Amino acid sequence: MSLIKLSDISTRAPKDLDKTDIKKKTEKMVVELDELQNLLFAEGKHAVLVVIQGMDGSGKDGVIRNVLGNMNPQGVTVKSYKAPTPEELSHDFLWRIHHATPSKGMIQVFNRSQYEDILITRVHKWCDDETARKRMNAINDFEKLLEQHNNTHILKFYLHISPEEQHERLSERMKDPAKMWKYNEKDFEEAKLWDIYMQMYEDCFNNCNSPAWTIVPADQNWYKEYIIATQLHQLLTGLNMQFPGMKK
Amino acid sequence: MSLIKLSDISTRAPKDLDKTDIKKKTEKMVVELDELQNLLFAEGKHAVLVVIQGMDGSGKDGVIRNVLGNMNPQGVTVKSYKAPTPEELSHDFLWRIHHATPSKGMIQVFNRSQYEDILITRVHKWCDDETARKRMNAINDFEKLLEQHNNTHILKFYLHISPEEQHERLSERMKDPAKMWKYNEKDFEEAKLWDIYMQMYEDCFNNCNSPAWTIVPADQNWYKEYIIATQLHQLLTGLNMQFPGMKK
Repeated sequence: MSLIKLSDISTRAPKDLDKTDIKKKTEKMVVELDELQNLLFAEGKHAVLVVIQGMDGSGKDGVIRNVLGNMNPQGVTVKSYKAPTPEELSHDFLWRIHHATPSKGMIQVFNRSQYEDILITRVHKWCDDETARKRMNAINDFEKLLEQHNNTHILKFYLHISPEEQHERLSERMKDPAKMWKYNEKDFEEAKLWDIYMQMYEDCFNNCNSPAWTIVPADQNWYKEYIIATQLHQLLTGLNMQFPGMKK
Repeated sequence: MSLIKLSDISTRAPKDLDKTDIKKKTEKMVVELDELQNLLFAEGKHAVLVVIQGMDGSGKDGVIRNVLGNMNPQGVTVKSYKAPTPEELSHDFLWRIHHATPSKGMIQVFNRSQYEDILITRVHKWCDDETARKRMNAINDFEKLLEQHNNTHILKFYLHISPEEQHERLSERMKDPAKMWKYNEKDFEEAKLWDIYMQMYEDCFNNCNSPAWTIVPADQNWYKEYIIATQLHQLLTGLNMQFPGMKK
């Protein structure tokens, strides 16, 4: 397996793509996703976990609203992970994560996830390298548990933006009244730690890559949404699901 | 590591023990356990998980009442695992277990546990050998998670009784008005599966023995309680706990 190096991966869509065409394809898939999710729910054999990670301003909320949020909320739930509460901190780091994992038939979206415990925590040195290694092993064991013991299919997305794009988006939050609520002066402080964040992300991808991460070029929303819709669409169609018929 | 063979282990106390003397020792420990638990709670650095397994009539409830139930219930909680609910069944088998694991400062008792998923389920062939192997690996990973990532100390007790003693106790449930509520005609059916249960227990001990199981001779309650009190007492005194002093 070749190692993931973020600086080798473009944050933009391939130049020859037709934006209008891609947007149409995404729209079509989003409609179909709603039907596929209904089938997943009805059949009740598989669980789906969608993990979304990315720097501030990388567009995590947008993906959830535009791609994942279009399905029936009865079968799709979103959990946003913030800084752990005192009760969460008094348990192992996967305790709060495991609790929110999907039951069969459900799609669970994690806006941030277990991976914060080897990202922000390492960047700020709240967690040493040895602990980080142990956490990575624990995450790998945990994802295997979900896959092997509840038929859970895990999609992991990293929204890959450039630091320039991030700066532009964070600055917008100071100007656009509809975005001001997202403004947090600390985000600019975090942005200064860009290089070390990239290093920790790479370490995470290269040690916790089964199931594999998708690095999503995310400077343009239309392309980011297309990639994520495509992956989820492929996963669900590949399950060969059937409506279960009348209960016996 | 030598393999555990239950038929080689006595279900009774060593003959030279003085019952009165042992009971006094247990009483003294039970008083001290209350103080040690208070210290565990105050310090808030360690978590303790006590797993109790055993055949019907092996005295699980008695241990909980007489040894573990003497401590402050604010710091000691008991979870009894019955057949899984539909919601629990729609998640991986460790989901309901992880949820009830102890936070730092707490003693959590499991009356039956994750091990039922490789015991009763195998005896009745609801779970094939390959799945059982995967579950054993998942249990080992899970216990490592609790130990490494929340400072959880796990004590695992198997209450080892003879089939004759079990028959006597189950029969009592039909005669003693204070025990009738425990009577379940299915218990006698399960008892007929004794040998296969012993085989599955041995397989479990020999594959999930880190942390190690204590096989507790349990035909006599006074000895069973002594062994369990001793183990918990040793664990807690070995933690070298300190009251944390004034908060800064």
